Amino acid sequence: MKEYKLTLAYNGKSYSGMQIQTNANTIEAELRKVFKLLFREDYDYTYSSRTDAGVHALGQVLVLRTNTTMPMKQIPKAMNANLPKDIVIRDIEEAFEGFHPRYHAKYKTYRYQVYGDPFRNPLLNDRAYYIHKDLDMVRMKEAMAYFIGEHDFIAFSSKGMSVQTTVRTIYDIKLTIEGSVIDIDITGSGFLYNMVRIMVGALVQVGLGVYEPSFIGDILKAKDRSLIKRVAPAHGLTLMEICYEPYDVN
Amino acid sequence: MKEYKLTLAYNGKSYSGMQIQTNANTIEAELRKVFKLLFREDYDYTYSSRTDAGVHALGQVLVLRTNTTMPMKQIPKAMNANLPKDIVIRDIEEAFEGFHPRYHAKYKTYRYQVYGDPFRNPLLNDRAYYIHKDLDMVRMKEAMAYFIGEHDFIAFSSKGMSVQTTVRTIYDIKLTIEGSVIDIDITGSGFLYNMVRIMVGALVQVGLGVYEPSFIGDILKAKDRSLIKRVAPAHGLTLMEICYEPYDVN
Repeated sequence: MKEYKLTLAYNGKSYSGMQIQTNANTIEAELRKVFKLLFREDYDYTYSSRTDAGVHALGQVLVLRTNTTMPMKQIPKAMNANLPKDIVIRDIEEAFEGFHPRYHAKYKTYRYQVYGDPFRNPLLNDRAYYIHKDLDMVRMKEAMAYFIGEHDFIAFSSKGMSVQTTVRTIYDIKLTIEGSVIDIDITGSGFLYNMVRIMVGALVQVGLGVYEPSFIGDILKAKDRSLIKRVAPAHGLTLMEICYEPYDVN
Repeated sequence: MKEYKLTLAYNGKSYSGMQIQTNANTIEAELRKVFKLLFREDYDYTYSSRTDAGVHALGQVLVLRTNTTMPMKQIPKAMNANLPKDIVIRDIEEAFEGFHPRYHAKYKTYRYQVYGDPFRNPLLNDRAYYIHKDLDMVRMKEAMAYFIGEHDFIAFSSKGMSVQTTVRTIYDIKLTIEGSVIDIDITGSGFLYNMVRIMVGALVQVGLGVYEPSFIGDILKAKDRSLIKRVAPAHGLTLMEICYEPYDVN
């Protein structure tokens, strides 16, 4: 049995998320069709992240187990030729035996795109969260700093995922502007359900002047889910990278 | 009669271009529906650029003539509330009497987005032209220089538009990289039919090593349409801006 680590990209717009469902089209359903076509029953797989409906990915990771004689370099080509245009296998490499794309992940990076403008930019529909007012980036940067480090993020999560602990470490948050679009890149040891979208929802409230930056620290300390009202929409979120080596603080 | 200059943005993906057609959905058809809804028969308009199917715009210009009593600032709001999400009125101002968005244009800027990568990025579908090989930007920059200035661009145009002269002036071409995406920004006095897409098609051949950079100069001199085989696809092209003041060379 060979084990391959595949890196996937997809535009989440037309899918009800990663995980297979009855009566809804998902990324996993599309992948499974292609696995069946290429490998018949000779395949098994595990993926890392159950991204929600509308969420995009450039670095989803999946391990594929198969006895196929197809040469490794041929697999992404054969898959991409049969997948819809909005799902792409970007990379393949041999996985070490027993590699688990979720349990062995050391950290992940998500990007959230948001822009504040008087008018919506139709080229950013389905890619970036549109706010029809200016966002104050200085305030947002001040607020972001409260997230860095190890915290109990229960106040920044939705119910619906059973986890042993709600403590996570945020290693880095970067805020950069491209044109009018603010990219918020968040790197952490792991993320609770809806955590990035709730963090960004709160940062946007800070950028709009509704919350003080220090309120982010207060919510973390209070560990109270009810304090946050706004979850930023799914279509602004992209899973950028899942890393399997420890985070290098330098 | 009031005359307003409107600036429009649209994602061209779902439309058969700007100009109204029977049996095909176009930007103009959507605009007309909304004009009728808001102003009944009391409207007339002229727009600047007949962008092709799939081409995007951030700076299309349209003059609207109407006797409506609706306050000026209200017009974009009322229009955007009724237009599809992929068409947006971004700006409105009073036009001088007799303003003609095509004849009075002094120069335009188009952006063409292209990227060369081993694998396609599904987040750039319908936005950027994908080449599955690396592009040599140094060669492309060298080739671009031949376009600058006043030339007969007949070799870089498709038949299908009746024009008095095929001489145009290119004021500026900029090539910038954002991530893996190359933005080619071309500013000129005007553009022949398919001119930007044919220029970019040729530049891509230079970037791939098929043409020498100096071949661009040779084609311009030869004025022979048959020398160019590749037209870059519509979905990489965005009409960025139409300007009504003379180009400032500084």
